Amino acid sequence: MKNYIKIDEWNIIEEGFDPTLNKISESIFSIGNGRFGQRANFEESYSGNTLQGNYIAGIYYPDKTRVGWWKNGYPEYFAKVLNSANWIAILVEIEGEQLDLNTCKISNFKRILHMKEGYLERSFVAEFKNGKQIKVNTARFCSIADSEIGAIRYSITPLNFSGIITITSLIDGDVKNKDSNYDEKFWDEVYQEIQNEEAFLTLRTKKTAFDVCTGISTSIFNEEKPLSVKSEAISKEKWVGNRIQQEVAEKVEYTLYKYAAIVSSENYKKPELVDACKKTLKRATEKGFEKLLEEQEQAWKKKWEESDILIEGDAAAQQGIRFNIFQLNQTYTGEDARLNIGPKGFTGEKYGGSTYWDTEAYCVPFYLATAEQKVSKNLLIYRYRHLQKAIENAEKLGFEKGAALYPMVTINGEECHNEWEITFEEIHRNGAIAYAIFNYIRYTGDQDYLIDYGLEVLIGIARFWSQRVNWSEERKQFVILGVTGPNEYENNVNNNWYTNLMATWCLSYTMEGLAYVAEQSPTKYQTLIQKTNFDQEAETARWKEIIDNMYFPGDDRLGIFLQQDGYLDKEQTLVKDLNRKHYPIHQNWSWDRILRSCFIKQADVLQGLYFFEDDYDIETLRRNFDFYEARTIHESSLSPCVHSILAAKLGDEERAYDFYLRTSRLDLDDYNNDTQDGLHITSMAGTWMSVVEGFAGMRVRNNQLYFNPILPEKWSSYSFTIGFRGSKLNIRIQESLIKISNHSGKDLVVVIHNQEYSIAGKTNVEVSSLKDYQK
Amino acid sequence: MKNYIKIDEWNIIEEGFDPTLNKISESIFSIGNGRFGQRANFEESYSGNTLQGNYIAGIYYPDKTRVGWWKNGYPEYFAKVLNSANWIAILVEIEGEQLDLNTCKISNFKRILHMKEGYLERSFVAEFKNGKQIKVNTARFCSIADSEIGAIRYSITPLNFSGIITITSLIDGDVKNKDSNYDEKFWDEVYQEIQNEEAFLTLRTKKTAFDVCTGISTSIFNEEKPLSVKSEAISKEKWVGNRIQQEVAEKVEYTLYKYAAIVSSENYKKPELVDACKKTLKRATEKGFEKLLEEQEQAWKKKWEESDILIEGDAAAQQGIRFNIFQLNQTYTGEDARLNIGPKGFTGEKYGGSTYWDTEAYCVPFYLATAEQKVSKNLLIYRYRHLQKAIENAEKLGFEKGAALYPMVTINGEECHNEWEITFEEIHRNGAIAYAIFNYIRYTGDQDYLIDYGLEVLIGIARFWSQRVNWSEERKQFVILGVTGPNEYENNVNNNWYTNLMATWCLSYTMEGLAYVAEQSPTKYQTLIQKTNFDQEAETARWKEIIDNMYFPGDDRLGIFLQQDGYLDKEQTLVKDLNRKHYPIHQNWSWDRILRSCFIKQADVLQGLYFFEDDYDIETLRRNFDFYEARTIHESSLSPCVHSILAAKLGDEERAYDFYLRTSRLDLDDYNNDTQDGLHITSMAGTWMSVVEGFAGMRVRNNQLYFNPILPEKWSSYSFTIGFRGSKLNIRIQESLIKISNHSGKDLVVVIHNQEYSIAGKTNVEVSSLKDYQK
Repeated sequence: MKNYIKIDEWNIIEEGFDPTLNKISESIFSIGNGRFGQRANFEESYSGNTLQGNYIAGIYYPDKTRVGWWKNGYPEYFAKVLNSANWIAILVEIEGEQLDLNTCKISNFKRILHMKEGYLERSFVAEFKNGKQIKVNTARFCSIADSEIGAIRYSITPLNFSGIITITSLIDGDVKNKDSNYDEKFWDEVYQEIQNEEAFLTLRTKKTAFDVCTGISTSIFNEEKPLSVKSEAISKEKWVGNRIQQEVAEKVEYTLYKYAAIVSSENYKKPELVDACKKTLKRATEKGFEKLLEEQEQAWKKKWEESDILIEGDAAAQQGIRFNIFQLNQTYTGEDARLNIGPKGFTGEKYGGSTYWDTEAYCVPFYLATAEQKVSKNLLIYRYRHLQKAIENAEKLGFEKGAALYPMVTINGEECHNEWEITFEEIHRNGAIAYAIFNYIRYTGDQDYLIDYGLEVLIGIARFWSQRVNWSEERKQFVILGVTGPNEYENNVNNNWYTNLMATWCLSYTMEGLAYVAEQSPTKYQTLIQKTNFDQEAETARWKEIIDNMYFPGDDRLGIFLQQDGYLDKEQTLVKDLNRKHYPIHQNWSWDRILRSCFIKQADVLQGLYFFEDDYDIETLRRNFDFYEARTIHESSLSPCVHSILAAKLGDEERAYDFYLRTSRLDLDDYNNDTQDGLHITSMAGTWMSVVEGFAGMRVRNNQLYFNPILPEKWSSYSFTIGFRGSKLNIRIQESLIKISNHSGKDLVVVIHNQEYSIAGKTNVEVSSLKDYQK
Repeated sequence: MKNYIKIDEWNIIEEGFDPTLNKISESIFSIGNGRFGQRANFEESYSGNTLQGNYIAGIYYPDKTRVGWWKNGYPEYFAKVLNSANWIAILVEIEGEQLDLNTCKISNFKRILHMKEGYLERSFVAEFKNGKQIKVNTARFCSIADSEIGAIRYSITPLNFSGIITITSLIDGDVKNKDSNYDEKFWDEVYQEIQNEEAFLTLRTKKTAFDVCTGISTSIFNEEKPLSVKSEAISKEKWVGNRIQQEVAEKVEYTLYKYAAIVSSENYKKPELVDACKKTLKRATEKGFEKLLEEQEQAWKKKWEESDILIEGDAAAQQGIRFNIFQLNQTYTGEDARLNIGPKGFTGEKYGGSTYWDTEAYCVPFYLATAEQKVSKNLLIYRYRHLQKAIENAEKLGFEKGAALYPMVTINGEECHNEWEITFEEIHRNGAIAYAIFNYIRYTGDQDYLIDYGLEVLIGIARFWSQRVNWSEERKQFVILGVTGPNEYENNVNNNWYTNLMATWCLSYTMEGLAYVAEQSPTKYQTLIQKTNFDQEAETARWKEIIDNMYFPGDDRLGIFLQQDGYLDKEQTLVKDLNRKHYPIHQNWSWDRILRSCFIKQADVLQGLYFFEDDYDIETLRRNFDFYEARTIHESSLSPCVHSILAAKLGDEERAYDFYLRTSRLDLDDYNNDTQDGLHITSMAGTWMSVVEGFAGMRVRNNQLYFNPILPEKWSSYSFTIGFRGSKLNIRIQESLIKISNHSGKDLVVVIHNQEYSIAGKTNVEVSSLKDYQK
């Protein structure tokens, strides 16, 4: 746990340069625009400890699998997002000495992530070995208004000398991934060009042959006056740049503007790539830095209007939630259904930039409420596009007839992970993908999605479950053997309650879907039946048999569902009784010891109760919550949010707030000592859920919004904005007042504490006595 | 499955050179002497497909672990046996062209492993590109009479020319392991010397700093006359040799003798190593090839007298069993308690030359019956010497107070494996190590072993089990969760019947051992109690509680023990009903599918019934055998032998023979398509057990030998020799006669078909009517 980020409601601020924190800050101050993004590496040369990272969404390389012991079924290659050309590099040299924050004497260092405006700023004073001092101020951003453009303003003021400064503005494509399994470089050079102040570099990924063309344009100003300096073209393989020798005067500020255009063959034909890059770069230079930044601020203003959460009375919580929302919006903008959300976004290499079930379980709810409908729809379409690969993936594992098993980890629809207990056994992910379809339609009412895309996916998933269960002659019930549930501190268990629940629910929901589509759109239904070779009678008969005869482990005496067969055979110790010297157990205990213990990494039965809460009464929830929460050690960043939501539902405001705290500043405070690898992007959506679904108790039932708010004691109020079926609402919760403002023109009925309220367009409703309801 | 080895009762013969079979033959024709050994690589240069292998027992390197995903508790380094200096290399060059079986035209190729005499012979005619032909005949062996010596006779006859042949006799130490995790070389050069016809090379292993000095001496004869040719010294780093230019005459045979001395710092002080090597080499050259070979034959004669099995009426079976016995005797001679038996012996790199529980479960019985007592005793002492490391290993996994968990795979007592489901969970190995102590004492009557060594090991093992079980409040019994049994087609199961059985048996046997030692040797008992900090009252009370309250899964309706909790939840398909296109499932099914299926890789419940057969009636055995055999797919080479022994016990001669066949020619026929990686050395002991414990039904009970022979229909007779407590017996079984000859001077009582027979020294007993007993 660290504590060096200054508390501020809108900005992330670091003061003073501590090289030991640099990799953590590189993660925290990351910027991105959904299309590309980067760690907060320095523009200058830096010989200290750093993880260099520039990532372009959708550009991946299938790295050869590395294993200790091969298991049949492992994928031979894993796709991973690449560290790509560094376009920010600006080398500054004075009398042969490089500006390098590791070798120069640094003072007045400050780094600010301006979340409201969407840019990164940094300033410092550097003293060279020869005693010369310069002041540097830089600002940069990845434009979300024009998503192939990046811009940098880099100002230098000589503080105690006049003389020559050599500045090299470049693109360095000779980069590699730190996690390259066999230490390979993944890029080849295809093209380079340097002309006047511009340089272009096209690189091609090995194997996948994605082309990415990066162009830069560099100009230098003396206090707003452009200087017409001749730049020298310099180049190496995969490396192009412009070098400027600039005569500078003491105490005068010189500002270098560097614009970058990053275009890829995902969006242009390869022969047209360089032209597209030049065109984009021209647009950037013509607009100029200030105009681009203004556009950026406008775009962020819109994002914040849609998604901000305001917390009053708790600046640390306010900063934490905004940081989460900011990073989520930087990572995914929902314009391209080929893209998705990696657990680290554009902030590190870990998890390979791939998609996990995190997207469906945690991110979809955030985007459903805070972005246009197409954003969450595109997250779903992503899986729809991978259906054929999921069918092939299932075939590789011995399933047949159109059964689909979505990969645990993927970029292009193929499996990108190789631990048998996860890759092959953590099959509940298939359920989360079906659940996201249900959840999306529940929220948006977009039933057409079911007809046009959803049902086909559901059929593949249902077929998987139908083949994955087996009949136990012993129990005379269906069982699901050999799985890993969301709680990854258990492997290869039988009858994981959550998995069995998801399986039967998927079958039921698919049958409902079939009936709906057959009735609503008989033609499309027929087309789908033919396309999927669906044997309606036989297949649904089997599904029904499974639904009616599934085995669910439980314990009548305790009145709880059992996480899996044999869970009660474990020694039932509680987390509160575990000596803290064992924390975290994943670092202090051997894997077998973790597996044998009853400690739970992440909500598992509780995840099921969260998904299907209306099927269970409050006392069932309470018994299970009390039992499992006491055994949950929350060593997954995805765990506390579900507990927070359920605690809020159970009226336990104190615990709900405690769980919330664990996630909201996870990265800002480096709670798990791993922020240097990148940010926990997907769990940030869970933090948002803790507020909106937890404290505010927001639900969608029967096409209506429900709220059951509570207010954490430390807060004087909180408010948030959501979009719901064309309406735009702001919900504000204070101790004595719940106020819902309907900013749209549409009338709406909402349910607050089980009572309906109509809110006409452009009006609001106020409900008092929150306290009473809390009791 | 291959079928190219000629059937012969005493020799392994390959005729004709097929490069695609070369790596298989390199394994099959391997030679060794317990101290060092090698694959049957060619002396000449060979540019074709080959796995070069020279191995020295006990010389290892800790290679950095390679994993896909790190689990806490994995060892950072694995010891593996090294590919070491190649001392056989003899390069033959004619007019600038190398003799290379991959580029020359080869005819009359023949390879013979003379098992009776213990040497490898090879002959062929090679035609060079220039048309010149030579005939080559080579013989070589690793001396078991003088175990630091190797010798080669290499004869060349020019068939159609006279001229110059250049011969280079060398030591090539610039070798690496094919399985090197990071492609490193493991040896550094320490010393080299070339003088006259001799060359010496001392290499040191990286990290472990073992020094190995190899010396060679080369001389050339013209039809028994030594030729005094001047050899030229040639050397590179890690490479020394003598080059001879020899004028040769057509149709005259020239014979080169090459002697090698291989000594290591395991047996000499480092500064004395070169001298020791020179002395050994001198001994070899003075004796000369023929004398050394004569000693070799004598030594093998003695081995065969002790361990041969004669099978009449089935030459293929005869060849198979002798091959197994030959390879076992080449791999381990029992003179050094620091050494043990790797699953591949000296025949390949796979399994790193490490020790598995194979040694205790399969090899100990073979050496107990066919070698001096010290041989099996040394196998046990090996584990005794590793006790402290086993305690440290257990500590690493969270156990304490002297609990010992022996590693799954080891060379030096440290764990050398990193699959969590095996490394951490296949803990039954600890039971096998205790069982070997019991088995050794049962066979030899050497109770002193218990006092001096065994009990200390047993206390460590018992403490492990005592901590590894946990009390299930649910069952009100002790359970053992999260294990992998001998059947590795199940991972992380609860209450594996075999493991639970071994655990309680270990506790009981340790308690018996404590009582015995306390009574027989109170002083040593007290010393041990102090050394181990043993709290007699508390610890044994806990053990007794566990013994009395252990849970064992079973099914009353079927009358069987259950392999583990939930086994009957699986789909109960039988191996006979599995379409053969799925064979072997470990290559055709994904790992999760294997885990879910009821198919068993290797005897598991049956292994327990085999170990403790006297505790179960024959009907219990039959029910369990019928149930589990039908589900066992025998994809471990260690599986069929136990089934064979039990089938024989159940009077099912046909199945016993079928199981026997699967193992006896496993490598000769390359049954599993993996012989090219090396031979299945430890499973060869299982083959021996199939004959002696299976067909002949040999057991030791109450200090007496029992026999219950059956005769496979295909055989007219079989006989074998065993040593038992100072007696030497030959047992011969024919259809109508069982004949036991007592070659020793000692009288002995044996039990045949439940009837006692006294056999006075130097006499024999004959029992007829085998047929009647079989019914």
